Amino acid sequence: MKIGIIGGGSIGLLFSYYLSEYYEVTLYTRTKEQADAICQNGIQLKYNGQTLRREIKTNSFENWHGDEDLTFIAVKQYHLRTIMKQLIEKQTGKTDFIFLQNGMGHLKLLELLNSETIYVSTVEHGAFKCNPYTVEHNGIGQTKLALFKGSNTLPNSLFLIHGFPVVFEADYYQMLIKKLVINAIINPLTSILRVTNGEIIQNEHYLRVVRNLFAEIAEILNLDDEGGYFQLVLEVCERTSANRSSMLKDIEQNNQTEVDSIIGFILEEAERKKIKAPICQMLYDFIKGSES
Amino acid sequence: MKIGIIGGGSIGLLFSYYLSEYYEVTLYTRTKEQADAICQNGIQLKYNGQTLRREIKTNSFENWHGDEDLTFIAVKQYHLRTIMKQLIEKQTGKTDFIFLQNGMGHLKLLELLNSETIYVSTVEHGAFKCNPYTVEHNGIGQTKLALFKGSNTLPNSLFLIHGFPVVFEADYYQMLIKKLVINAIINPLTSILRVTNGEIIQNEHYLRVVRNLFAEIAEILNLDDEGGYFQLVLEVCERTSANRSSMLKDIEQNNQTEVDSIIGFILEEAERKKIKAPICQMLYDFIKGSES
Repeated sequence: MKIGIIGGGSIGLLFSYYLSEYYEVTLYTRTKEQADAICQNGIQLKYNGQTLRREIKTNSFENWHGDEDLTFIAVKQYHLRTIMKQLIEKQTGKTDFIFLQNGMGHLKLLELLNSETIYVSTVEHGAFKCNPYTVEHNGIGQTKLALFKGSNTLPNSLFLIHGFPVVFEADYYQMLIKKLVINAIINPLTSILRVTNGEIIQNEHYLRVVRNLFAEIAEILNLDDEGGYFQLVLEVCERTSANRSSMLKDIEQNNQTEVDSIIGFILEEAERKKIKAPICQMLYDFIKGSES
Repeated sequence: MKIGIIGGGSIGLLFSYYLSEYYEVTLYTRTKEQADAICQNGIQLKYNGQTLRREIKTNSFENWHGDEDLTFIAVKQYHLRTIMKQLIEKQTGKTDFIFLQNGMGHLKLLELLNSETIYVSTVEHGAFKCNPYTVEHNGIGQTKLALFKGSNTLPNSLFLIHGFPVVFEADYYQMLIKKLVINAIINPLTSILRVTNGEIIQNEHYLRVVRNLFAEIAEILNLDDEGGYFQLVLEVCERTSANRSSMLKDIEQNNQTEVDSIIGFILEEAERKKIKAPICQMLYDFIKGSES
């Protein structure tokens, strides 16, 4: 089975490495330089003090035509709009898509594709891109997949890769909403307060912010099991207590954040349902303001 | 005329220096060490590259009895509760009071005093305490005074001190509310975002936060001339564009802030009037959480 992966960031490199255990992988990168560097050095994975290497095919994204059976889209949400135009225009082959983006802002774009089968995903790995061909795998997490449209034709081997657990979920909306609620609370608060995931529940004042923000989000998203979701947020804060969230890292490194696909999506929902969202709006503006 | 000043922080030192031009000033400090240091070195004022010196009397606060004609209370709002108990218990002389605290949280305490005449004040000077007896005057601003109760018996000379403009205001509530609105917007936002006063209006996202926060405060305080107040906030941000707010400095230096007397007061008003205050509540919790 042939697999294409679009995007040479940390997640694109990580998936390229692990998926190449069973499949013929081609990684499509934005720059020819990165494609050449990987061709020369292989994909290198740092894990547990070791550096492992595998050979894969590479190409520039401009040469992509969708010739593989399955294509993983591993670009950031805010690059997706540019990519989508090219996916639609350049696709001559017949490929299924798996979208790896955070949040839910990208769902409305997926309807634009012709493909019969599209999956969405949540990725919980910790990964850091050390250089154009090396990724450090510093936290093993689950990759959850669910059908967005079409029928499931994923090979069994995808669920058997060593050190790279993949699970299939029945309901894509529930799967994404769960991750969205967690991200919508942990990411902006840790970024604004510049603290680790654990710190936002470690004093009564921050915890009240978490509660009030959760209540606002729960109303907007019309969550069915509020208590369960809130418990999940607390659990993730505790389990990843020492971690710095991806949004905090983006803010610290003056990178663009994924706030549009997370809080931006919730604000769109609030607008659509005519529900006030003063807390989300303020968090959104704090983050967008510090980006600019 | 004899003047007592309670509190040897930057504002207490500043007032001691300037008021000693016309009056016999006694500065009451918390520690005997500071009283001794001032006795030995005089009060020293750094201004415009020069260091000026004046002799004043000093004493420990424990020896205060209210023997002066007029007593300035120059402690931080969060020390006022402790001080008040002692003011009430120890006062044997007949003195009028002028309270220099920020915010409006302290007004309810003033009713506890026996004095016939009490003034409140807003202070706009920039002052930095260099050591126990030296204060740097790095921004000349107005001191506004208004009667809280009783009748005005302030001497004319108080309004004639060189480099230390004092003005009398007719309505203490309007005077304090104006300062409160400005402080409630500039202080928490600059502290959380860790930016200068000017930056909170320099991009569209931060400016929207300013607008939304102002709207919430205007409703709670039932401001009569909303447009005028909002214009004032923008003007102060522009005029003090490069300044770091006192709350930001407190947060950076891990000091307690005056958030209780500013946002805390607004939250009490909201509670009393049964108005929702999600933005103020979140700002309050952000600040209190980072203090703890």
